[in-house]
This record gives sequence, structure tokens and C-alpha cells, in this order.
Amino acid sequence: MLKAKTKSKNLRIKPELPGGFRDYGPADAILRQRLLEKIRKTFEDFGFDPMETPAVERTEVLTGGERESAKIIFNVRGSKDLPAGQARKGSDSSLRFDLTVPLARFIALNPEIPKPFKRYQIGQVWRGESPQAGRYREFLQADVDIVGSSSLGADAEIIAVIYSVFINLGIQNFLIKINDRKLLNDLPSFAGFPEKKLWDVLRTIDKKDRLGDTAVRKELIKIVKKKAADKIMNEFLKTGIPSSDSMKKLGALLELLDAMGIDKDKRTLDFSVVRGLGYYTGPVFESVLTKLPQRGSVAGGGRYDTLTVPFTGEKIPAVGVSFGVDRLLAALDELGLLKKKPTVTKVLILNLLPAASKEYLSLAKTLRAANINTAIYLGDDRAFQAQLAYAVKKEIPYVIIYGEEERKKGAVTIKNLATREQKEIPKGNILQYFKK
Amino acid sequence: MLKAKTKSKNLRIKPELPGGFRDYGPADAILRQRLLEKIRKTFEDFGFDPMETPAVERTEVLTGGERESAKIIFNVRGSKDLPAGQARKGSDSSLRFDLTVPLARFIALNPEIPKPFKRYQIGQVWRGESPQAGRYREFLQADVDIVGSSSLGADAEIIAVIYSVFINLGIQNFLIKINDRKLLNDLPSFAGFPEKKLWDVLRTIDKKDRLGDTAVRKELIKIVKKKAADKIMNEFLKTGIPSSDSMKKLGALLELLDAMGIDKDKRTLDFSVVRGLGYYTGPVFESVLTKLPQRGSVAGGGRYDTLTVPFTGEKIPAVGVSFGVDRLLAALDELGLLKKKPTVTKVLILNLLPAASKEYLSLAKTLRAANINTAIYLGDDRAFQAQLAYAVKKEIPYVIIYGEEERKKGAVTIKNLATREQKEIPKGNILQYFKK
Repeated sequence: MLKAKTKSKNLRIKPELPGGFRDYGPADAILRQRLLEKIRKTFEDFGFDPMETPAVERTEVLTGGERESAKIIFNVRGSKDLPAGQARKGSDSSLRFDLTVPLARFIALNPEIPKPFKRYQIGQVWRGESPQAGRYREFLQADVDIVGSSSLGADAEIIAVIYSVFINLGIQNFLIKINDRKLLNDLPSFAGFPEKKLWDVLRTIDKKDRLGDTAVRKELIKIVKKKAADKIMNEFLKTGIPSSDSMKKLGALLELLDAMGIDKDKRTLDFSVVRGLGYYTGPVFESVLTKLPQRGSVAGGGRYDTLTVPFTGEKIPAVGVSFGVDRLLAALDELGLLKKKPTVTKVLILNLLPAASKEYLSLAKTLRAANINTAIYLGDDRAFQAQLAYAVKKEIPYVIIYGEEERKKGAVTIKNLATREQKEIPKGNILQYFKK
Repeated sequence: MLKAKTKSKNLRIKPELPGGFRDYGPADAILRQRLLEKIRKTFEDFGFDPMETPAVERTEVLTGGERESAKIIFNVRGSKDLPAGQARKGSDSSLRFDLTVPLARFIALNPEIPKPFKRYQIGQVWRGESPQAGRYREFLQADVDIVGSSSLGADAEIIAVIYSVFINLGIQNFLIKINDRKLLNDLPSFAGFPEKKLWDVLRTIDKKDRLGDTAVRKELIKIVKKKAADKIMNEFLKTGIPSSDSMKKLGALLELLDAMGIDKDKRTLDFSVVRGLGYYTGPVFESVLTKLPQRGSVAGGGRYDTLTVPFTGEKIPAVGVSFGVDRLLAALDELGLLKKKPTVTKVLILNLLPAASKEYLSLAKTLRAANINTAIYLGDDRAFQAQLAYAVKKEIPYVIIYGEEERKKGAVTIKNLATREQKEIPKGNILQYFKK
């Protein structure tokens, strides 16, 4: 007996998470759920349909188009896939790092799907980066994309979705920043520096919001000649490349947004927006909450017309946006725009009389049928004070007391735990009480 | 140029999924979403709060309690965790294979959380088994659990949740089968066979529904003596162990279910229910759709009072159930209880006149504000027939035609694609049309 105990002590497992992962307890999960419902509703308003792809994709599918992403993915291996003693090579399967590559794979796999194909997907993505302070390796994304339309109206609709999501979430202080990758591609000839320096330059101007003009200029001078750096800082970042085709397209895009009733002060051209080094081929956009610019973009996307090429050899025009749900949630929390509540339970029925258990169950049934989330106290400590303390700790708004006295009178006592008010009412009037 | 083309051809990547994984296209995803909303609603009716744990857990946490599970998990490794050329050993992290072990880990990590802790979690789980016909390696589970209550009322509430989920999903033909692991533990002394044969016996009687009485008896005789096999078949599986403590507890549980208004013909004691070889310590339950018994259990669970022991050394009583959402969905589909629709879009506004684009946008805004999911046609082929064909293919119920003629009259033509009826109405009456 003693031996077994010691053994079990030695086997104690730390109940910890791997670095870079986190739990969402009820208070956070309730908020996230509420946020997702509004996002989902907005997506469906615009006629986007839900879709789901698995967490696991073939590694080749994920890394194929782009070498860079190979560095940050999580490889996955079923324990039965690996005969004992056999050497492990690169894994065939990995966790998705975004929802866009799986969409391109889906489109290539299902060529018969009617286009334009408008879908949304809400799901976790994983990045196998070294976990740093505040950087998670799993995060929730909500994506909308339009596949099979090269129309500028599709780009405008995606921006309108971003706008509507923020408005429907009750956010007023946001700014959608718009640029065009084609415009950025013209930067070497416009500013006068070698083509091969383009990505170094873009990586630098992308940091403008974070580092400020002076620091960006300093960095640029290390990459290109002073004259080119000045042209980038004083001309390109201020007015783009006037009268170029890309600028005309951006102008037409802004006109469409005006026609959609999008406030002019909630969208702007910003020629420093680069959107990573990924797969974009046309307009790109980022969105910041203007009171929290340091949080960075909470919704970014753009046009990517070549993402199916590695699969089919053919271009299919596409444009979309990805909301960083967790980042958005954290930002709204920091802004005090969210009211956290620790439970969805509205009423706790105290479990006071063993003989009345049928009546408790019947009360609960009545309340639940009226869409009032109701719990019956199930704790092992049945003392009145313990039951009340539980409701207080859980911040359940109402408590129903049905003890000896109430039972004799055919009444219930309802206690509002926020106001501390207590009221005895006839048992039959219980729904009326909650209707007001 | 030619060279580049050849090269890109060689690099072609197959847009396939790894074996055992599947996509949910819009029609399936819409169904699943609808199902989840009803399940979630039922969970919240009973006062269960949402919670989320990450997909990835420490391997030790997942495998610690039970050696068997180690065989079926997916190991996960961030590509940056592994310096090049270094030998790979067992992975520190793995994908969760259920939502119960992560719950136990969460409870151990957050001892301050008020108990009873009633939470639900809806999420994917992964099993690294060899993919077989029809067996998936990723599936969606919806779990409710009550942690910190040893009361039989908690077991009853979990069964009531199963019952209510089925009723709220419009399912009538289901049966909840109830047994007790403690009763099963008494089987060797009751039937007269050695303790060490218990699991072999249980594995056999667990197959009763699938194989039938004759086959089970045949198998039992290979494990235990004929007399014991007869006692199991003729007594235990029919009436349990009369007047044992476990039978009394099961009787009390049934009485609670009666008090909760649960139809007697929708629940039964079934002494062949084993629920795998896992962590259960008390009542266990499974649920089948009675018209599809071969589909097996679509919601199973039970009491597990020792799951936190590997983490804390202490028992915390807990009981819960897990709904196999994908299995349930497939079963309902087979029963014809689901009406698939390929899109959530209700109205497609045809994009006929470039000059009217503002009016299309304004029409869409009006409809969306009235909760009518509306898309404006965004395809590159703007021919009227192409736009109509798109709506037909997508099975969008209504099409709004606003061409030259309608524009002159201030009217819109609404075409109901199901009935093929077409009606011209004043533009201002559009919401009235959809209200009926």
C-alpha cells in the first residue's frame, strides 16, 4: 500500500500547457463566443457560406508555394505511422498556419464548385515559432474570401465586410489602410534603386507605423542611395506613384467604397502597407484600432490571384481578409469595450429540501423553456450559506429559494444578487418576474 | 520562358488531404453549424458555460493516466524546435484525443475555480490511428461535464442533457442505455470467474449489440467456464446483480430521471454497456438512434472520479458526456432528418447595369439590415444568363432583377427560383415582399 502510494507520487504529472498555448476559461470563452456570433452573422449577411477544412494538411500543400512558411509550421505524426526503431524523416503532415492555403487546396480539389465562391471559415491556426512573451502558437482566425472574381467590386466587398464587422461589434475608432502590391512592385523604377533590393525596402517601410519616419529613413539609407530613400520617404509614402495604373485602380476602389456608404474617415490609402511577403498580387489592406495602433493589424488581407497555380497550373482570381479573433478580443478588452461575465447561468435554484427535488426540477424546466439559463445547485455541501456563496462566487445574477416556508405558501423567494433585493412571489408567477 | 514553364509543371502539388481527413463544404458546414447552435443552446439552458483548451497538450498530460491512449495520439513538433541534424526522440507535445483529459488538466491547474464547475466544450479531437474506410482521424466533439459533485443528481442532469439535446434536435427515436462500472467490477465474484479475466469478458459483452447473443456466448466460453458464461448471459445481462448496492444506485438514478420528465421508453438499463476501458468509475451511458443501431453510440459518457489524481494526487468527482457531432450528423443525414441547403444566401442581386452599381449596393444594404442574407453577383461573366445560371447552380432561393426597364419604372423584378414565379414590384416595397 505504502509502496503504491510512493509510486503514484513519483508519477505526478504537472498540469501545465506547452509554451505558447493558453486556455480560455468561461469568462474569456463567453466573450469569444459572443464576438464570433456577430462576426459570423455579418459574414452571412453578405452571403458568405461557412466551410471547414481539417487542422492537418499535407506538408507539401502548406509549404509548396512559399519557402518561408516551412520554417514556422508544426509537423504532425500519428504514433502508428512510425514503426518502432525506424528513423524519422520530415513529416508528411502538418498543422495549417492559415486558412487561405487550405482554401486554395480545396478550390483545386473541387473544380466543379460554382464561382464566384464566397466562403467564410472560422478556425484555429498554428505556428511553430519559438514562443515569445505574448506570442501564441495557436490562434483563432475568421476569414472571408471571394474566389473566382477579378472584379474590383469583390475587393470592395471584402473591405465592406471588414467595415461592417467593426461597426456591428460596436467599434467606432478603426481605420482600414489600403495599398496595392502592384504599386509596390513599381517602386524600384519609381524611386531609382535596383529591383533586387525591393524586399529589403518593403520590409523597412512596413515598419513605418511602429518605428516612425526618422528610423525608417535611417534604415532605408543603409539599403539604397540617399536620393532613392528621400524619394521613397518624401514622395512615394505620401502620394504613391501619381497617375500610374495602380493609383487609378485604387482611386476606383475608393469610389466603390464611397458608394457602399463607408465613412471616408474610416478608410485611407497607406503606401507603407506591405502585408508580409506572401502571396498577394493586387490590393492589400490592414485594419487598426486607432486608439491602440501599437496592437498592429486586427484584420488584414488582399487579392491573391496565383494561389492555386502550384496545384492546377492555372490562376484563379481571389480576394479575402483574415480577422485575428484573439488579437481583436484582447484589444477590445484593453479598450474596455467588453463586459466580461463569468457565467451564462442566469438563475441558480438552491437545493434545500431533499423532498422537493421534483419541484426544483419542474421549476428549472419552466425557466429553461422560457430561455432562461437555469442551474440547480449540485454541490456536495448542501448548507444554505454554501449554496449562496457559490452563486456569489460564480456571479450568477439570481437565486431561487424554495425552502420549508415557501413550500407551505406555494411561493418562491427570488434574490437578485447584484442589488441584494429579495422578493417572495407566488410560485406560478415566476416567469412574469423575469419578463420585466 | 519555356524552361520556367516546365519547371513549374514539375513542381505541381497534388491538392489532396492526408488519409483520414475530410473537408466540410458549405452544405455540410451549414448543417453542422445549425446542429451545433442547438446543442450549444441546450447546454446553456442547463447553465453550462463554454470553455476552450488548446488543440496541443503536453504528451505526458495526455498519456500519463493510461498507457493505451499513447498508441493513438498525434505527436506535434514545431519546425523550430528541432535543430537540423539532431536526432528526433519522442515528441513533447501532441494533439488532444478527447476533451476530458484536457478538462482534468485545466481543473488541476486552476484549483481556485468554484465547484461544481459546469462547462461545455465544442472542439476537434484527433486520433492518430491508421485511417480505415469511413474512420476519420479528426472529429468534432461536444462535451458537457460537471466537476466537483458526487451527487447522483449530477449524473441525472448529464443524462437529462443528452435527452434534451436529442429532443431539441427533433430526434424521436433514440435510446439512452445506462450501466454502472461498479456493477461490472462485481461481475467476477457474481458469475464465478477469476478477476484477471474481467477485461476480456467486458470486451466481449460490449459487442453484444453488434454480434448478438449467440456469438457473444461462444466467445465467452473461450474465456471463462461454461457455467460462468451461462450466468453472465442468462442472469447478469438480463437483470444485473439484484439487490447489490450498484443496482440500488441505478434504481435511484432512474427515479431521478422519471422526476425530470424523461420518457421511460427513451432510457433503459443495459448491463452490456462498458464504455471502453477508460477512466470511468461509476454510472456510464451510451445513446443510440434506434433506427440506426449499427451506427453505434452517438453520445457516451459517465462518471470519472479519479481523472485528476495523476496531476494532484487527489480525487475530484466528475461526470460528463461527449456527443460525437460528426457521427450524429451522418446518422441524421442517413435518416433523412436533415434538409441540406447549399448556401445561406437568400437573395442574389443581379449585376446588370454598370451605371446602377450604387443602387445595387443600396438594395443589398436594405435587405441585409432586415436580416436577409444578400449577395450581389460578382462574377466576371456579366451576361444575364450566366448570372441566372449561377443563382440556379448555387440554389439561391431569390433573384432580384433591376435592369433598364425596372430602373425606368422604379421597380424591381423578384424571381423565386423554386417556383419559377416572377413578380415586378415597386422598389420601395422590397422588404414587404420578403416579410410574407
